[in-house]
Parts: sequence; structure tokens; C-alpha cells
Amino acid sequence: MEYVTGVKQKDTLELSQLFEEGVAGNRVKVNGAIHTIRDMGTVAFIILRKREGLVQCVFEEGVSKFDLKDLKEADTVEVTGIFAASEKAPGGVEIRIEEIQILSEPAKPLPLPVAKWKLDTSLEARLNYRPISLRNIRERAKFKIQEGIVRGFRDFLYEQGFTEIHTPKIGAKSAEGGANVFKLDYFHKPAILQQSPQFYKQMMVGVFDRVFETAPVFRAEKHNTKRHLNEYTSLDFEMGYIDGFEDIMAMEAGLLQYTMKILQKDYARELKILGIELPKAEEIPAVRFDEVKKMVSEKYGRKIKNPFDLEPEEELLIGQYAKEEWDADFVFVTHYPSKKRPFYAMDDPEDTTYTLSFDLLFQGMEITTGGQRIHDYNKLMEKMETRGMTEEGMEQYLSAFKHGMPPHGGLGIGLERLAMKLIGEDNVREATLFPRDLSRLEP
Amino acid sequence: MEYVTGVKQKDTLELSQLFEEGVAGNRVKVNGAIHTIRDMGTVAFIILRKREGLVQCVFEEGVSKFDLKDLKEADTVEVTGIFAASEKAPGGVEIRIEEIQILSEPAKPLPLPVAKWKLDTSLEARLNYRPISLRNIRERAKFKIQEGIVRGFRDFLYEQGFTEIHTPKIGAKSAEGGANVFKLDYFHKPAILQQSPQFYKQMMVGVFDRVFETAPVFRAEKHNTKRHLNEYTSLDFEMGYIDGFEDIMAMEAGLLQYTMKILQKDYARELKILGIELPKAEEIPAVRFDEVKKMVSEKYGRKIKNPFDLEPEEELLIGQYAKEEWDADFVFVTHYPSKKRPFYAMDDPEDTTYTLSFDLLFQGMEITTGGQRIHDYNKLMEKMETRGMTEEGMEQYLSAFKHGMPPHGGLGIGLERLAMKLIGEDNVREATLFPRDLSRLEP
Repeated sequence: MEYVTGVKQKDTLELSQLFEEGVAGNRVKVNGAIHTIRDMGTVAFIILRKREGLVQCVFEEGVSKFDLKDLKEADTVEVTGIFAASEKAPGGVEIRIEEIQILSEPAKPLPLPVAKWKLDTSLEARLNYRPISLRNIRERAKFKIQEGIVRGFRDFLYEQGFTEIHTPKIGAKSAEGGANVFKLDYFHKPAILQQSPQFYKQMMVGVFDRVFETAPVFRAEKHNTKRHLNEYTSLDFEMGYIDGFEDIMAMEAGLLQYTMKILQKDYARELKILGIELPKAEEIPAVRFDEVKKMVSEKYGRKIKNPFDLEPEEELLIGQYAKEEWDADFVFVTHYPSKKRPFYAMDDPEDTTYTLSFDLLFQGMEITTGGQRIHDYNKLMEKMETRGMTEEGMEQYLSAFKHGMPPHGGLGIGLERLAMKLIGEDNVREATLFPRDLSRLEP
Repeated sequence: MEYVTGVKQKDTLELSQLFEEGVAGNRVKVNGAIHTIRDMGTVAFIILRKREGLVQCVFEEGVSKFDLKDLKEADTVEVTGIFAASEKAPGGVEIRIEEIQILSEPAKPLPLPVAKWKLDTSLEARLNYRPISLRNIRERAKFKIQEGIVRGFRDFLYEQGFTEIHTPKIGAKSAEGGANVFKLDYFHKPAILQQSPQFYKQMMVGVFDRVFETAPVFRAEKHNTKRHLNEYTSLDFEMGYIDGFEDIMAMEAGLLQYTMKILQKDYARELKILGIELPKAEEIPAVRFDEVKKMVSEKYGRKIKNPFDLEPEEELLIGQYAKEEWDADFVFVTHYPSKKRPFYAMDDPEDTTYTLSFDLLFQGMEITTGGQRIHDYNKLMEKMETRGMTEEGMEQYLSAFKHGMPPHGGLGIGLERLAMKLIGEDNVREATLFPRDLSRLEP
């Protein structure tokens, strides 16, 4: 028997240690993957890829005690050498190699030039070779930005007194209903994959007042567009004791401000790699659905085809309008028509054609749907009745309301869409580690 | 158009504000759900439930400007009153009500006595009425502990340079194989729900060096036991550049130590409510599979039936042994037999009957499986061949190895099992918000 007592310090250094604490002339040890080898004859530059970036190691014939021919790209190695300043090297430092130990070797050369700054390969090929293409520094950086968004979301909501929940993805009944549901056999019972944690997070408002979840949702939509995925990560929250849906928008504005700060502070490296300038979220304009439709129609001379729907092109124009008129990247569109919202959305008592709800558009793309929900049991039952819905499979959801629920509301943010817009891409697959769409089920 | 600028301070107070900053004699506003009403005649105690706990509000005939008869349990209300010290009240304070505004009302009385300290109701009934039974203070506290575990896991791993990833739950092929897979139709293609993020996290070690995920996994196992769920939350990590599987155990020990500190610091209220004494994780014994079987067999006079398997009863005895001999709640059992581990587990070069892997037992129950993985493409192909496996559906997984992977390993922790043991329960459903088992698909 031996005791395990916790993480032990290794003698290999991470890049932040090397860059911040490295002393010229000192002997250091670093491990990593060989990103690229530039052989200049008697000297060769071996660039190692580590989680925090790249570091240049220098092979010198006669000094380095190994044969350069023994090394190849995608080997993983442990280098021992002398730390030195070097203006031309990434991070301004290099390691003059004395010894190198090969930890692992590839069986075949890389199918993609991952060491190039920009991977000039089709999206299709990059997705097919996902575990390889992501070794490119820029491709990888996109997913650190995605991580930063999720961290910002969680940390801000923890601070605001929210409880994190984990709700089941397999269920008997879906919250949003409709045909876009994946079905499966659950021990000889029909089951579905949840399209959203809607019912669960609402039920949990009666328990924890404020809850959030960051988890996958599943939508069997047959859209094959640049902005649709059949499985994505939904950032959901729901909060009780609100005075109105404005409280939900205020929380989202605070959340976005906080997230931009986290990104600026902890993800500066990736922002620089991707050349991202973060959007402003200090003041987010909020404008009514019917009004913004008119504004856009008037400014851009576009006829309103359907007063109760927003077409993708209209969303783009609203984004353009917000930028031009208010210098805003984000814009809340409020009071969506009731018939475009699910049964649980609260109608505006002043005009029940509309709801106390909103979408958040980011540069003309919807990234959030939210609003106040009906909390009164009788009103919920009435609304269901007018929509011809039955209680079947929703008994427990309804029981939460039957036995008292505070006024509440919430929202869902599509992580990949927000990440896509932040990194300046126009296909949501660029911001998805392993996308699932109509034709893609692998890798 | 109006601007949304972020979260605004409300004039209602949260309990921490009230308890820490409340000044006797001041007028305060608090909202919450009526947990219980104790009517003493001319005086009544109205206990409000808020996310941080309970607060006592006092109704006094003549002083409070409303009729007590208008109030009932499960109303949500906003109370205005005078803050006062009170030795007998929870938290040592109370609010002498002047006015009360009803925010919402239940349609029916509560089906369970949620205000009782211990909900003396069968697990079955508590699960059936989940949105109601969780309003009980003790039931609810269990899921704050669960939250604390996940926070500890993530925060520790962020600090250790891990990247959080989100991998797809719908796929063409499962990592663990076998029959215990949920199947679904994915746009006329056969698909499965992932039993673990194993393949994905391994592939991502080649990209980020260290990754983790906290997400649902799905197992179509026909076990109907106290410790099996068909959907659960798996806390997974995978790390590269390890010297051996001992690095994985060291990381887990560090993780557990950190998590216990987070719980002690930020979840003291819930630990107290549940009467939890946290287990020790400073020194975790690690002992070989074959040796510990012998130790237990000798000490407890139990014959070894199968030298290559651990029965649940044996696990319990190992837990007992670890407590008695080493005063340890956790124990690593190392070097599991190769035939009990998946193909990707690395065999011990000194004796290939066993693997460089481990389980972590917590008070006699397995809560983690982990180990070093094969990183060499040719060795991986050989192992697959000896097991009669084909490459089909695993091409991309294998391509990561073909094109170079560092030595690596990782583990998966079953969140609900760890939470169950921490809160001193013996049924994993107690620590699951909405369990999915052979017979339960709702709520």
C-alpha cells in the first residue's frame, strides 16, 4: 500500500512558467508535440506545441546530442536545453536543445498542414479530420473562447445566487412539443430527447428560486443551414420573484458584460490569435418587435410581408440598424407575437397578441430566446386549452404550478451561435467541436 | 427604444444581506414562498422560504395590516416589516410584518408536508412529486452539495490548465461498446447515445493536452439496483504527458482535497443542515487489485471466488478494511485485470494480465474508473485485433493515434454516486434531481 497525496510538481515547465520565470542560461525541461521542424542545415528550429502556445527549440549540430533525422512532426517529446532570449522566437524565448527524448511517434504523416497559421482547408475537410485540424493554433483558440463564454455564464450566475442543476435529457414528453423531436426506445417505452430543459428549470424555480444549466439539447430539425445544429449546448437560466421580463434582460446584459471582462482578462492570448475585438455590451438597446419591424422597413425600404414573423433577412437588417443608429452589436427585440411563442410564455395583459418575451440579436443573429412565463396554474391551464393541448405527460410540470410558483422567467442562449459570432465566423460548425447536422454523425 | 444596462439592485433583501447587514428597527422588504404558518391566536409565525434558507415573519393582530386568513402555505409574497432580533427564530432574526403583498397563489394545497424537517415519505413518493418534495429544506440541500462537487471539479481543473470541452451525445458508435447502448433513428441513420465521452476526450488530448467535461452519459443497463442509473452526470478528465497512471490518481486526490475545501467554505450551511462530516482525502491509500483481494479474504475469512473480478460485497469489505486499517474513506484499487477493462486501457508491461488502471472506492463503493490509455497506434491496433474488433466507425478516433498522441490517461467520476455517499444516502436516486431508471422516465 502506498499513499496518494495530491498533484506533484513536475520538473518539466509550462509556457507561462518559462516565459515569466525563465532565466537566460538556465537548464530547463519542456515537453510537447513537434508542431513543425525548419531544417536550416547545421541548425534547425523545432517548434513545440503546448497547451499554452508554441515554443521554439533550437537544434545545433555538435551541441544537441541526437540526430535530427530521428525527429518528425507530431512526435511528442521531452526537451532538455538552455533557456535563452531570442527576439525572433514566439514569446521572445527559445531553448537550445541539449537532449531530446521521444515520448511517442505518429504512424503516418499528418494529413493536414496544421502548423500553417491559417488552415486553408475546406470546412468539410476540417470537420472530417477534427482531431487533427484542431491541432492548428487558430482552430484550437476558437474553443478556448467558447470555454470562456461558459465560464463567464456560470461564474456570473453563481455570484447572482443561482443554483446549477442537471436535468435529464431522456424523457417521456418534450417541453417545446412539435415534430422536431428525436425519438428512442426506452426499455420498450417510447421516449424522446429533450429539446430544452424548459420544464425542469421552471419546476426548479419553485425550489431554488434561481437555477441554471449548461448542457446539450437535441433538435431533430431538418434545416441544413449555416446556423442550425441538431445537437448543441444550451446555456439556460430561470429566475423567480421577477417584476417583469425586463429583469431577465437586465440579468443577460450583466452576464454579457461579465463574460466580456472574463474573455478580456483570461483569454487575451486567444483574442489576439483570432484578431477578435469584443463587442460592447454596456448598453443594449431594447425595442419592440412591431416597432423595429417598422423602423427597418422604413429605413431600408423593405416591405413587411408578415407582421407576426421575423425573417432571417429582417434580423440581419435589425442588426445593421442597431449598429448604424445606436452603435450597438447586441439588440433586444421585445414583445414577440403570442402565436410564435410556446404556451408557457406570458401574454402581455395590455395586448394579448404579444408576449412579455424577447430575443437577443447579436450582429443580426438570434442567440437568445427568453421571457416571462405564466406562473398561475389556472391561467396556464386556460392557455393550454386554447391551444388544444392536454395534460398528458405534463402532470408533474403542472403540479409545480398547482402547488404555487413565484412570478418567473428565463432564457436560453445557444453557446455555439454566440461563440461563432464572437470569433467572426458565419457557420456555426466552426464553433462546434464535433457538429451534428443532417448529414454529419461522425466523428 | 430603451437601454438595458445590467442587473439593478432591488429593494427586497436576500437572507445573507438581512442576517449580515440588518439593523434592528429598520424597515425591510423580503420576498419568498410561505413555507409554513403557525397561528397562535393574536400572533402568527409566517416562515418564508428563500434560496438561502428560512426567515421568520411575525403577524400581529392590529399591527399587521392584513387578514391572516388571506394567507396560505405555498403563496409567494412580498413582506414589508420591521427587522428585529429574536433568539428563537432561525438565523436569530425576525421581521414584524406591517404589510404583505401576495405575488402568487397555489390552486391546491400541498400534497406533501414539505415544511417538516425530515420528509417522512417514501423515496418513490418523493420522486413522483419531485418539484414539490424538493421544496423541503433538507431535500434541497442535497443538490447544493451536488453543485459544490461540480464546482470543485471544474475550478480545480481550470487551475491545473485543463480546457473544458462539449462533446456530442448522439453518435454513430459508442466508446464502450457492448449491448448497453440506447439506439435511435438519426434522419434514417442508426445512431446511439454515448455511454461516455471517452473517445472524444482522448482525441482532444492531442489538441489541448488536458481536457474535462461535465455532461450526461447514457447507459441502457438493465440493472435495477440502488446504485445504477440509466442516465447520469459524468465528471470526466483526460490528460497528456503523464509519467504513469499514478499522475491520474494524484490529480484526483488533489481534486478531492480541493472539493472538500470548497464544500467546507461555501456550503457550510448545507453541510450543517444534512449533518455531514466530510471525508478525509489528504492521504488516499492505493493498493493493487490482487493484493487487496487477498488482504480482505484473510482479514474477513472470505474465500476468493473469482481472482479477476470484484464483487460488490468485496468492494464493501475493501471499504471496511481501508477504514479499519488505514482510517481512510477513499481507497484506490490499482492494476485491474485486463479482461475487465476496455481495449484502450494500457496493459502493465510487467504482467499483461493486469492494466495500468484503477478504481477509486469511497466507503466501499466505486465512484471512479480511470487509468493510462494506449497511445501508440500500432499497439492500439494490435489490442483491437486480439479482441476481434474492427476499425469500423472508429476511423477518426484511430486517426488521432495514427497521427501522434502523447502518453495520456484519465478518469470518469459518477457525480450522483459521489454525492450520494457524501450526503450519507444509500440510494443513488436520493442524489439525482430527476432519476432515470428501468421504470422511471418521469417527471
